[in-house]
Amino acid sequence: MSDVRIHNLAISLDGFATGEPQTAEAPFGHAGERLHEWMFATRFWNEMVGAPGGTAGADNAFATLHGHGFGAEIMGANKFGPPGWQDDPDWTGWWGSDPPFHTPTFVLTHRPRPSIEMEGGTTFHFLDATPAEALRRAREAAGGLDVRIGGGPTVVRDFVREGLVDHMHLVQVPIVLGRGVRIWDGLEALETTYDIEATSTSSGVTHLTFTRRR
Amino acid sequence: MSDVRIHNLAISLDGFATGEPQTAEAPFGHAGERLHEWMFATRFWNEMVGAPGGTAGADNAFATLHGHGFGAEIMGANKFGPPGWQDDPDWTGWWGSDPPFHTPTFVLTHRPRPSIEMEGGTTFHFLDATPAEALRRAREAAGGLDVRIGGGPTVVRDFVREGLVDHMHLVQVPIVLGRGVRIWDGLEALETTYDIEATSTSSGVTHLTFTRRR
Repeated sequence: MSDVRIHNLAISLDGFATGEPQTAEAPFGHAGERLHEWMFATRFWNEMVGAPGGTAGADNAFATLHGHGFGAEIMGANKFGPPGWQDDPDWTGWWGSDPPFHTPTFVLTHRPRPSIEMEGGTTFHFLDATPAEALRRAREAAGGLDVRIGGGPTVVRDFVREGLVDHMHLVQVPIVLGRGVRIWDGLEALETTYDIEATSTSSGVTHLTFTRRR
Repeated sequence: MSDVRIHNLAISLDGFATGEPQTAEAPFGHAGERLHEWMFATRFWNEMVGAPGGTAGADNAFATLHGHGFGAEIMGANKFGPPGWQDDPDWTGWWGSDPPFHTPTFVLTHRPRPSIEMEGGTTFHFLDATPAEALRRAREAAGGLDVRIGGGPTVVRDFVREGLVDHMHLVQVPIVLGRGVRIWDGLEALETTYDIEATSTSSGVTHLTFTRRR
């Protein structure tokens, strides 16, 4: 059976995975890009955007797992576009004509639309479904490979709470956001079902990995 | 000028420094002793309770700073006793006849009582005062040494928010408590006034240190 994994979900010290308000100009609200600067410095990121260089240390090792072994992604409506994208029939996501997913990608929304085939292997499918049903569909499409839960934090929480996630990788960034969407709400006693490991790195972030006990 | 410091304040991944409800039998509520097991394993703790052994690694190094260079402590009413201790004229704290403070120790309470001189150099003074006023009194008593803000989390937050704290050491324990008293509330943008460092150790905790920029 393939695994369900979450990678590179950055949170503040106080657990917010995004600030507020989320708009087309500021997808992460008042957090800006501060939750992701650690990743922009890595070789993983530079390769993805076609730039040279980047760090090759622990941050890069963790970040790179995001791209390995996946056959499908599931994301929430708030990741696919800014508030109101459902009213724009031409919206095809933030990522241009060749999105970085390169697999079937399932967007959870209460207002589904026809699938969109992009360049580079990404096809967006729109589902109004429970986490379990969405995962069943994604697994069918993944051809035996793993399924990534791509976020945002509300969707991640939903899948973790339902017991559907095998691995979760959070990256704790040393800022205090104070407001936004908190990853931890409703996840009390997560340590009873996951082995948790913490790894601080020289960039100042701490990688938190959760591995479900078998 | 002496420094104001906080040491060994343990929090869950979701930022709770205590669970709930707090009672005489369970001072940390449903958290039990899980926030402090990392400390019980150290040489620092064993020395304090008169036991042999204990680890001598990074956890012990951080923990030991709690005892160095202090001339006074300030604590909140919730640290001094269980809810309702103010109604018990014989209550002298959790710590027996020789408390581990060995300095003047200021207890913030809206119902002050006469000072209590304990064995071993600890004298409890009871103050109904603002953080700034309490700090002024503690500094007078500290004889040029540092002042420790001993907790609980509400008092720590109050002093940090008022800009009175020079160093803060939090210890993030890999559990998700879900409820209790959260350290982060009201501390948005703490990274603008403090340098923050994270150090994960082999026990699974992550030490977070905050050093005020000069």
